[in-house]
Amino acid sequence: MANLTRFNLAETVALLARTPATLDALLRGLPDVWIRSNEGRSNEGNETWSAFDIVGHLIVGERTDWMPRARIIFESGEARAFDPFDRFAQAKEGQGKLLDQLLDEFARLRKENLAALHALNLQPEDLARRGKHPALGAVTLAELLATWAVHDLTHLHQLSRVMAHQYRDAVGPWSAYLGVLHCSGHSAP
Amino acid sequence: MANLTRFNLAETVALLARTPATLDALLRGLPDVWIRSNEGRSNEGNETWSAFDIVGHLIVGERTDWMPRARIIFESGEARAFDPFDRFAQAKEGQGKLLDQLLDEFARLRKENLAALHALNLQPEDLARRGKHPALGAVTLAELLATWAVHDLTHLHQLSRVMAHQYRDAVGPWSAYLGVLHCSGHSAP
Repeated sequence: MANLTRFNLAETVALLARTPATLDALLRGLPDVWIRSNEGRSNEGNETWSAFDIVGHLIVGERTDWMPRARIIFESGEARAFDPFDRFAQAKEGQGKLLDQLLDEFARLRKENLAALHALNLQPEDLARRGKHPALGAVTLAELLATWAVHDLTHLHQLSRVMAHQYRDAVGPWSAYLGVLHCSGHSAP
Repeated sequence: MANLTRFNLAETVALLARTPATLDALLRGLPDVWIRSNEGRSNEGNETWSAFDIVGHLIVGERTDWMPRARIIFESGEARAFDPFDRFAQAKEGQGKLLDQLLDEFARLRKENLAALHALNLQPEDLARRGKHPALGAVTLAELLATWAVHDLTHLHQLSRVMAHQYRDAVGPWSAYLGVLHCSGHSAP
């Protein structure tokens, strides 16, 4: 195993700051087959997520999850549990919108949230502050911020899988060599 | 299951054209912890790939795999098997270079290859032309081009996993919810 990295605020922000432009470069202007298609029904019978749904989900996270939870840690510590995160609110978020609007909205919200994070002027000792997750129990501010970044990566991972799925048949016998076509999703989603 | 998509040349090119800018937006200027770290040793005892290695591998593909194989299909059909693809040539490719140089090189080569593809002026009947893969046997030009696109996605999928791995410890109990941390890689790589 490689040495696993300790949390570092500047390195985390560097990653968080790049996600909107990454999704923009990948998705803006792409034909609908890549944007609007999902992986079919999950084992639980729900429709899985499309690229469009994923961007909507990231917007909901900017609005209701990451910085709101950081503020709860600052203001209330473990005395007040975080509000549960609605993992299906993106259906409402995307209604009647175009992908380009969602990409713009995500970029704007991420920029505002990183400015708000910067304004907190976090000191090393702040990173150990604790909050209360409604299901996971005690968590630290550093863990919340690390999760914000890895959550971006988990959805980039999902996005590449959902898009690749559309060509599962088209690649013919090469499917044996293409790892992304053998990814089961690991968790919902 | 959703209906799986039939191969479409314009849709494939739309995706292929976006990969260099996507990787550029994600990786250029990122701290080395995200760029140069890998996932440790594989079960076979080899070092796994870093983001830097992955971009090097994509460059090798542009040089020796996709368009060269398309040309073999055009010129020789099944009479001449493709040259095997060297999946480890990226070590040499990256030697002494900076990531920014690799990103520039990948963008330049991809642009040239898409121009060369366009110059072939493929007609629908050309897509069914057959070539001979050294291990997989008969494949079509459409399958080769679909695989070129899904190969980009398989490495975006790998990249998000390799990067997320660096924060496997930092996310604390949230690791249970982050699908990318439960991805085993599916194939090497």
